[in-house]
Amino acid sequence: MLSALDNERLARIGPGTEMGALMRRYWIPFLLTEDVPDADGDPVRVTLLGERLVAFRNSVGQVGLVDRLCAHRNADLFFGRNEENGLRCTYHGWKYDIDGKCTDMPSEASDSSFRDKIQLRAYPVRERGGVLWTYMGPKEHMQPMPEFEWTRVPDDHRYVSWNFQENNYAQAIEGGIDTVHSVYLHSAMDSHRRLNDWQNEGKDSGDVTKMYRTRENPPKLKALETDFGLIIGGRYPGDETQDYWRFNLFWMPFYTAPPGGGEGKMMHAFVPVDDVTTARWCFTWSTNGKPLSRRHVADLRKGQGVHAQTIPGTHWPVRNMRNDYLIDREEQRHLTFTGIKGTGEQDFSVQEGMGKVSDRTREHLGVTDIGIIAMRRMLLHSAAAIREGAEPTSARSPDAYRVRPGQTMIPTDADWTTHENLQEAIAATY
Amino acid sequence: MLSALDNERLARIGPGTEMGALMRRYWIPFLLTEDVPDADGDPVRVTLLGERLVAFRNSVGQVGLVDRLCAHRNADLFFGRNEENGLRCTYHGWKYDIDGKCTDMPSEASDSSFRDKIQLRAYPVRERGGVLWTYMGPKEHMQPMPEFEWTRVPDDHRYVSWNFQENNYAQAIEGGIDTVHSVYLHSAMDSHRRLNDWQNEGKDSGDVTKMYRTRENPPKLKALETDFGLIIGGRYPGDETQDYWRFNLFWMPFYTAPPGGGEGKMMHAFVPVDDVTTARWCFTWSTNGKPLSRRHVADLRKGQGVHAQTIPGTHWPVRNMRNDYLIDREEQRHLTFTGIKGTGEQDFSVQEGMGKVSDRTREHLGVTDIGIIAMRRMLLHSAAAIREGAEPTSARSPDAYRVRPGQTMIPTDADWTTHENLQEAIAATY
Amino acid sequence: MLSALDNERLARIGPGTEMGALMRRYWIPFLLTEDVPDADGDPVRVTLLGERLVAFRNSVGQVGLVDRLCAHRNADLFFGRNEENGLRCTYHGWKYDIDGKCTDMPSEASDSSFRDKIQLRAYPVRERGGVLWTYMGPKEHMQPMPEFEWTRVPDDHRYVSWNFQENNYAQAIEGGIDTVHSVYLHSAMDSHRRLNDWQNEGKDSGDVTKMYRTRENPPKLKALETDFGLIIGGRYPGDETQDYWRFNLFWMPFYTAPPGGGEGKMMHAFVPVDDVTTARWCFTWSTNGKPLSRRHVADLRKGQGVHAQTIPGTHWPVRNMRNDYLIDREEQRHLTFTGIKGTGEQDFSVQEGMGKVSDRTREHLGVTDIGIIAMRRMLLHSAAAIREGAEPTSARSPDAYRVRPGQTMIPTDADWTTHENLQEAIAATY
Repeated sequence: MLSALDNERLARIGPGTEMGALMRRYWIPFLLTEDVPDADGDPVRVTLLGERLVAFRNSVGQVGLVDRLCAHRNADLFFGRNEENGLRCTYHGWKYDIDGKCTDMPSEASDSSFRDKIQLRAYPVRERGGVLWTYMGPKEHMQPMPEFEWTRVPDDHRYVSWNFQENNYAQAIEGGIDTVHSVYLHSAMDSHRRLNDWQNEGKDSGDVTKMYRTRENPPKLKALETDFGLIIGGRYPGDETQDYWRFNLFWMPFYTAPPGGGEGKMMHAFVPVDDVTTARWCFTWSTNGKPLSRRHVADLRKGQGVHAQTIPGTHWPVRNMRNDYLIDREEQRHLTFTGIKGTGEQDFSVQEGMGKVSDRTREHLGVTDIGIIAMRRMLLHSAAAIREGAEPTSARSPDAYRVRPGQTMIPTDADWTTHENLQEAIAATY
Repeated sequence: MLSALDNERLARIGPGTEMGALMRRYWIPFLLTEDVPDADGDPVRVTLLGERLVAFRNSVGQVGLVDRLCAHRNADLFFGRNEENGLRCTYHGWKYDIDGKCTDMPSEASDSSFRDKIQLRAYPVRERGGVLWTYMGPKEHMQPMPEFEWTRVPDDHRYVSWNFQENNYAQAIEGGIDTVHSVYLHSAMDSHRRLNDWQNEGKDSGDVTKMYRTRENPPKLKALETDFGLIIGGRYPGDETQDYWRFNLFWMPFYTAPPGGGEGKMMHAFVPVDDVTTARWCFTWSTNGKPLSRRHVADLRKGQGVHAQTIPGTHWPVRNMRNDYLIDREEQRHLTFTGIKGTGEQDFSVQEGMGKVSDRTREHLGVTDIGIIAMRRMLLHSAAAIREGAEPTSARSPDAYRVRPGQTMIPTDADWTTHENLQEAIAATY
Repeated sequence: MLSALDNERLARIGPGTEMGALMRRYWIPFLLTEDVPDADGDPVRVTLLGERLVAFRNSVGQVGLVDRLCAHRNADLFFGRNEENGLRCTYHGWKYDIDGKCTDMPSEASDSSFRDKIQLRAYPVRERGGVLWTYMGPKEHMQPMPEFEWTRVPDDHRYVSWNFQENNYAQAIEGGIDTVHSVYLHSAMDSHRRLNDWQNEGKDSGDVTKMYRTRENPPKLKALETDFGLIIGGRYPGDETQDYWRFNLFWMPFYTAPPGGGEGKMMHAFVPVDDVTTARWCFTWSTNGKPLSRRHVADLRKGQGVHAQTIPGTHWPVRNMRNDYLIDREEQRHLTFTGIKGTGEQDFSVQEGMGKVSDRTREHLGVTDIGIIAMRRMLLHSAAAIREGAEPTSARSPDAYRVRPGQTMIPTDADWTTHENLQEAIAATY
């Protein structure tokens, strides 16, 4: 649990908040490249960390991310004209380049210098991994971009999607860190029965790792602080001399990856749109050196796996809180734990169900919440540190982000935190 | 009128409020038995006195009413699995019985005692009269259930329905107590004309009591405090030696019955869902010792009489504030006083029209409001008394609830409050 | 820009506010005559200056504008019966005449004098120019109605419509005063190109005034205070000895007219419904002494020109903020500046886009905003003056309102503010 005050400090990310200052030290994914596909194409509304912005791609293909409202008299630039290297306000024709500089002001006399004094709030934009990123913090603290493996693989080795979810970012991160819920929330009924039934364990699976995982529930969890964030290790009984470990990751300030994954890996970003809305990103990438198959990508596009099915032309989920995620109670009784289709939607049902901002003063945390507790502490401490003048290490360690979730065996008598098997298990190839 | 402060004290019923404490001394109807029909069936959302709860029927047919959110990390138990004698959270599999006790916690080690410390807020549930009741107050003040006649008749002598209405409970009770409005709000135009037209009085009706009622308008109203609440007597001129009296009733804390009814009787409960939403219950029962006819019940199910027509699968009225109750102005001009179909919907149009909480500082009360004034005083005094340590008598007088509305003749020179005809007129048969 | 405090003072118009007091010194158009067409017809909901009211036409054709809620117990009089010279509450039959006097109270004894004490809030109503007007201020400050030309022409020389728009009134007035935006927001692409292209100027137009207007952009603006409000003069280069001037007008407290118009003129009222909603009125009238043609009126009814297309049976625009005004980006790229159909809807896109109340602390005003600055100052000063005991001159100068927008040539070396050509250009014929 958290105090009511810490719960607020964790949740609020708007301008002027403590956590908002922390978030503004990191590069933030905010749109897919394909969301702003064309030079001089349609402007796109973006809300990020509680700020209302608009994105547009200029004539030479660069993307701008600027204040939604014109500096003149607050007209909405979403309705603006995306013209020769600038977004022009429809009200009086003021025009801005991607840096927010006013480049034309036809409503003033042609010899006026008023134009030179007008600077729209604008944030730098980079394209990487099929994603548009921005940095919203103080210029002097801007750092190189994080070197996630999925941003470094060839384009056809990756599939990325994102969708809105209607709750504060922090309870979404908690879901991403919390590995134990998978055997409940995301399970089919037979696997659930198996969990409660030692005798059947492992019999119907060719996956030897599954054998270790299901033998004992829950795993022993440990959280290790690193330069990028946290390694959350789950220890399962192995054989006489060694344990089976699974590692899921939390990269500051809002990325998570579960330990699973065979041919491919998957990770999330839970980007705060505003205090009560989150952009949930899903990054799937291949780790076998081969492109994702067309069939696989086609399935992901339809909303397979963690990728949510969204209403065409939007990033809003088809199955959402307003339709009870189209829960099928008959299916819940007989086939799946929730009766809700889709891993993401299953997560939404518990995360949105907590309310817009979960009231953490009422919680009762157990042994499976060790990673969550460590994450909250890291965010709250890092945010408080900025107020004291200390910048976060992780924001300045882009290369440390080159890790991926993994699993391995480690000798029972060894220190897992320093064992070479850990480093090997989470090392990125790209 | 009330002061702004008393208006707030009357209206607010959430945890920690004065009126909320009073309400929490009484058994409260919260769902129909048929709303939670099956053992291990679908959980049902319930909001009551501002508290978000979930109801479920366990494997042996008992109904639980517990906190909506899991004690672990606030996942919504509405999406839970209703399994062998418990509701299991879909997030990490914590399971609760109908008493809110955590009976399984698979996410913790099997030898952990953490489970024993977890107790979900839970309220006792009883089934009576086709209705599920709960008690939300301090255990030491829990009393036997009220002995309403409609709960005591055989099942096929009764029909019960309920619907939401979008205003504070108190202005709904006021409508239930206020008998005079019937000759306006609920009348057809010809009866209305008759009221204003002495000469036509009684000529077109075989109902002799109607003769007395329509001869003079309005009746003289008196309110009598009793162990169960209030008897509101309406006195009409009778013959030379006696008066015609009609009695409508207010049972604490939110039940009312109009004086009417021939072969059957009808009463209401106006249960506070939250400060601005009310569950309006309608109880129709036969007083002639016979079952209600199938035809009659079929009509009531369709929304006849006081039973509102609701959107199938919900308890929300078809004719509601968002569609102006489908008012037909042509019908209002020529046929009925309101042009709105349905007694209940006619009531909604005036009660919801007052706003979520009626501003009683602006009122101008007249002689017809004597019952309403007495009811407000009783609720406010009883609520204040609890604060002073005095428990309400009515909550401890379940047998006193065995009364029903009625009418009778009483000698003009007698004291109506002690006359045997009053007792006889309102005595329940069952 | 304004301070945050002045922005609030400008925007808030409810009872008890400073600007609300100013607005309550003027006659206010609130419905079309045709919105309340029939004697004893349907009551109509009206919200004005934040007050919830209901309008009805009595048996002899007079219109009443009274409090929405009954004085008895707050029942909504919109559902009332409009009967023989009074609106009767459906709850207990209390009846009110157009002056708010209670004329029947059948729920009280017939010899009761309670009725005489009941007075519903009521405002005087006048019909003029096809429009219903009211005055909501202190009786002692009520003045004759303003003598707008459009109210004085024969009925078939005029067409009037109104629609809701979802923002504070002040930013709507600003749009009405701001003439410069027309060459951007309301222009087709070819005219826009022309603005940036001196060589093409005037070539494709037979309109000689357009030649002056487009030769230089922007015009030199001046604001002149008058007894009715403001004349905003725009000076354009003419020939060697004289300038071309265009005058648009601001009549206190919320009327504007653009300088354009050939055979007919057009003006607006932006009436505050509440703090965040505005009734935008459009008055089109003929100045050539002839009726508007049937064809012209038919087009205006469909939403041509400034008259917005509304959802049938309502005053809500078809193209609105919830559907992005049905913007057509392809059309925006190639044909029109906005891709939005309708002059009014183009205005809504910038005015509603500013937010419910524009944050004027962020503005950067230029030379084209001189009229807007003068208007804000006049409203704020006049409102402050009332607090000091000084009543506004304009409210007491109904004849000064007999002006219309216009254009003229004025010698370069003359004082435009006193030149007879100005007076002639804006003089009304009727």
